Amino acid sequence: MWADLRPIGRHADSGGYRRYAWTGTDADCRTWFQEQAEARGLAYETDRNGNQWAWLGDPLAGDAVVTGSHLDSVPDGGAFDGPLGVVSSFAALDELRGRGAEFTRPLAVVNFGDEEGARFGLACVGSRLASGQLTKEQAYDLRDGDGISLPQAMEAAGYDPSAIGADPERLARVGAFVELHVEQGRALDLSGDAVGIASAIWPHGRWRFDFRGEANHAGTTRLVDRRDPMLTYAETVLAARREAELAGALATFGKISVEPNGVNAIPSLVRGWLDSRAPDQAALDTVVAAIEQAAKERAERDGVDLSVVRESFTPVIEFEHALRDQLDKILGGRIPVLGTGAGHDAGILSGSIPTAMLFVRNPTGVSHSPAEYAPEDDCVAGVLALADVLEGLACG
Amino acid sequence: MWADLRPIGRHADSGGYRRYAWTGTDADCRTWFQEQAEARGLAYETDRNGNQWAWLGDPLAGDAVVTGSHLDSVPDGGAFDGPLGVVSSFAALDELRGRGAEFTRPLAVVNFGDEEGARFGLACVGSRLASGQLTKEQAYDLRDGDGISLPQAMEAAGYDPSAIGADPERLARVGAFVELHVEQGRALDLSGDAVGIASAIWPHGRWRFDFRGEANHAGTTRLVDRRDPMLTYAETVLAARREAELAGALATFGKISVEPNGVNAIPSLVRGWLDSRAPDQAALDTVVAAIEQAAKERAERDGVDLSVVRESFTPVIEFEHALRDQLDKILGGRIPVLGTGAGHDAGILSGSIPTAMLFVRNPTGVSHSPAEYAPEDDCVAGVLALADVLEGLACG
Repeated sequence: MWADLRPIGRHADSGGYRRYAWTGTDADCRTWFQEQAEARGLAYETDRNGNQWAWLGDPLAGDAVVTGSHLDSVPDGGAFDGPLGVVSSFAALDELRGRGAEFTRPLAVVNFGDEEGARFGLACVGSRLASGQLTKEQAYDLRDGDGISLPQAMEAAGYDPSAIGADPERLARVGAFVELHVEQGRALDLSGDAVGIASAIWPHGRWRFDFRGEANHAGTTRLVDRRDPMLTYAETVLAARREAELAGALATFGKISVEPNGVNAIPSLVRGWLDSRAPDQAALDTVVAAIEQAAKERAERDGVDLSVVRESFTPVIEFEHALRDQLDKILGGRIPVLGTGAGHDAGILSGSIPTAMLFVRNPTGVSHSPAEYAPEDDCVAGVLALADVLEGLACG
Repeated sequence: MWADLRPIGRHADSGGYRRYAWTGTDADCRTWFQEQAEARGLAYETDRNGNQWAWLGDPLAGDAVVTGSHLDSVPDGGAFDGPLGVVSSFAALDELRGRGAEFTRPLAVVNFGDEEGARFGLACVGSRLASGQLTKEQAYDLRDGDGISLPQAMEAAGYDPSAIGADPERLARVGAFVELHVEQGRALDLSGDAVGIASAIWPHGRWRFDFRGEANHAGTTRLVDRRDPMLTYAETVLAARREAELAGALATFGKISVEPNGVNAIPSLVRGWLDSRAPDQAALDTVVAAIEQAAKERAERDGVDLSVVRESFTPVIEFEHALRDQLDKILGGRIPVLGTGAGHDAGILSGSIPTAMLFVRNPTGVSHSPAEYAPEDDCVAGVLALADVLEGLACG
């Protein structure tokens, strides 16, 4: 199962994955999903937002137990972020069939589309649309780096974009959603556990900082005559690290766009994206305000105009306590409960339906990189834990 | 003459010019040049390196007086950097014909190809090839951002790349080259003169700084576990400004490339290009060494690997004193002599033939930007000064 999925969208130079929503690579991943569903005799369907479902039992019966994750990737991402959850879902189903489990509730494996937001800049598009957190109108305004809109991209991939939007009837038929995911930090490694249960997702957001100066010749313009936005950007990058350290939060500038981006030209525009997350809302507000303040002060000194736009935001998400406790009980109270800074479809859906997450140990903590890795033994432990959970929920 | 040239390669959004070597826009500029030559009954030819020449008199007679500049631009460059010199050359010839000047030496107007290096990353390719400062083999290794090689680009534009290389016979037939150029600083504005003569070009170079860290998830990786090269880059940008200020030099990071460049990914690689120039070699060496040292220290702290490559370098260029004094005498000693930090084809050629430069006042000093500007009166003064110089040299 892994063997067929592994080569799709893998970039020869970096060894990383480039599986972006509604591309040919994405289509290959989707074909793989459909084949896995059909090979197991599951009823395959795509919903109005292009998310893929594979059903065991009657999809319309209600109170379904759903598991799954996503197959798309960040630029040069790793093999596990997303796919491990989908592969483990199918493997857990195989395990349960091997155990001769009898299902009293419908079960489904799901692949949510465009979780990483690598192409259109917004994460969890598939689950946001389904839950109504992203409207059809907002989705129609999303464009990729080449100016192609989301509906254009969906249409080119053979999907009908006119149908997208909130899908309350479908979600109402889901009694519980459990997402298994590779851990993206080292908490399990530090505690010595193969598998963990998620408690909460930190509040997080993305802010776009536009630093506007004046393009000029790098070889002739006196330093005092310059309005160089690269200086303001640089100061802001260092401020972000400093303020995050002070607040016990995370703050990262990982994406930048520069105009004209010429070796001998002082930039007219430096655009930097801040990703920041913190254990609670107050800490996040403090960090972002302090970074903005540092940027503003330096902008004044550099003669640079600054504008800051919050491009996305997700408040703190506490996973449903009842379902979490149920998982804890099924798993015999033997695995730790931990928070995470990463967003997930499970987080988005937690506003609409009971959701829970399982994490699989990541010994290096490295994620969103070709070096992302989970040992085989831990992956097996993850599948068995997920199988136990599904058995406990759907075969009760 | 200006009217036909102005719209070519102008970008609708920025108002800046995007005239890159061997593109369709470049071809349009070249057609314009040929039309200007033919409209004046000048003998048109391209040399083995694709530079364009328009001859009045016998090209083979030797001791020719040559004037001109370039028509290509930096990304979103201004209308004057390059084109002002070519347009003024034709206009000066028109002026001399109006004066009924009789030429005793052959005269040519030239358009050197790929002066800005916006596409292949190396400036003054046309004059470097002609003077032998760039070999055919080195030129064949040049690639643009899409991986297209210089010979492939030349061929696509209808030129024969196999012929490129040093052109000593052609240069031997040139007795003097005079390039008129818009000033790219404010020295003439500060001294209150419309036109100036160049004394020297500062030594300058480009250095590529590769900061290699580890790609990781921005939302889950603890700050202490990070190897974030964006931090090292930011510190280096600020160090460059500081060191340049201390040394009375210039240092600029105007171009950057980031991998994977995702909002929620700590970068694996930040590549920044340093452009630095100083009045003398010792000052330049000091500045670049200090920037490298600052980068190295911060890299250690960030767990980042640093490599620095000097991509290009041009030593200080003193324009030939005899020709410079001749210009000064022709122009009646009435205009100032000034140095510049910008590289030019005239600087490259000064190693092979006697060259001189005239600058036209730039009231804002802004260059390499859509806002680059020279007032009409000053442009006319430039044409008249150039006409005086050409008359003095070629009609003696």
